[in-house]
Amino acid sequence: MGKQYSSTLLDNAVEEFSKLPGIGRKTALRLMLHILRRDLVDVDRLAESIVKLRHEVKHCNVCHNLCDGDICEICNNPLRDRSIVCVVENFQDVIAIEATSQFHGLYHVLGGVISPMDAIAAKDLEIESLVERVKKDNVEEVILALSSTMEGDTTNFVISKKLDKFCNLKLTILARGISLNDELQYTDEATLGKSIVNRVPFKNN
Amino acid sequence: MGKQYSSTLLDNAVEEFSKLPGIGRKTALRLMLHILRRDLVDVDRLAESIVKLRHEVKHCNVCHNLCDGDICEICNNPLRDRSIVCVVENFQDVIAIEATSQFHGLYHVLGGVISPMDAIAAKDLEIESLVERVKKDNVEEVILALSSTMEGDTTNFVISKKLDKFCNLKLTILARGISLNDELQYTDEATLGKSIVNRVPFKNN
Repeated sequence: MGKQYSSTLLDNAVEEFSKLPGIGRKTALRLMLHILRRDLVDVDRLAESIVKLRHEVKHCNVCHNLCDGDICEICNNPLRDRSIVCVVENFQDVIAIEATSQFHGLYHVLGGVISPMDAIAAKDLEIESLVERVKKDNVEEVILALSSTMEGDTTNFVISKKLDKFCNLKLTILARGISLNDELQYTDEATLGKSIVNRVPFKNN
Repeated sequence: MGKQYSSTLLDNAVEEFSKLPGIGRKTALRLMLHILRRDLVDVDRLAESIVKLRHEVKHCNVCHNLCDGDICEICNNPLRDRSIVCVVENFQDVIAIEATSQFHGLYHVLGGVISPMDAIAAKDLEIESLVERVKKDNVEEVILALSSTMEGDTTNFVISKKLDKFCNLKLTILARGISLNDELQYTDEATLGKSIVNRVPFKNN
């Protein structure tokens, strides 16, 4: 990209920002013009926050969630039920489940799902460490909370095979069916079909 | 905002990024997760670019355009016609006019337009320095290239009053009328009316 603005410094900053996903040159320019109007300390703080994030963030030794120290706050929390481990694809899924306030166990972040298209195999994921955890930590239930896609299903299958040897372990999967507040006529056939086949006893809850 | 993610570093970076205009917490999180996957040097370069921009960028002593030194490249360019000065609101307008390749004179960046609603008065803009330039630099023509809004028109009027005393100075304004490729039936009344009143002799160009 050649020089576009009257300041090389601006050119540079726009160039760097427009490398971020979903940020084009116009947005980058708008952000940089905002940066120019901000206080020096604010800009320094912004820059420092990303440098520190990139250099210092770690993964929890137990569940592989993002954290600042060796063990994350969820794994360190004595109030969490250590006998249930919820297996998720990534760190955002932990946030999503935590937001429901319905789960009080621990997590295990796989770091992705098996996907031949993206060259992600079982060995690239934290599956072995999950088996180790189940073996050592007295885990009673493993919840498979992966995406309801072909890749997610494949990964569920591989994990279930690896956990087969623990005969007392309860292996569960997130319920699949029509979404809350969904109108039936607009629900896709596959989901609707599955929710009929997997119908459950009616109770008011 | 309370702690939301399992890493305070991430919390912090998301918080800082979501202060940027048009960037909410979800976008900020998406950008930070991208940052986490980028090389260390790339992230350092990104952070440095905004710090340098904010700390080191200057305004041209002549035209007040953004630049890295004391005088901007346009004002320094011996090929530009120094007898014509185009008055614009801000630095983006310089980029827009430069992109047309139709103007070869110099610029004068006002830094805004008079707007009582935003508490911007004539003294807050680079109007006096424009008058000084006209007085000292042998300027023959001043082009008023401000937005076609009430604020722009007010600013045009104030500038024209200040430049009244230079009787040999040619004061011009951007042509206003229907846009190129506009369909007449969709053009707004005010523009269409003005383009009829200000009709010009037909010539093939």
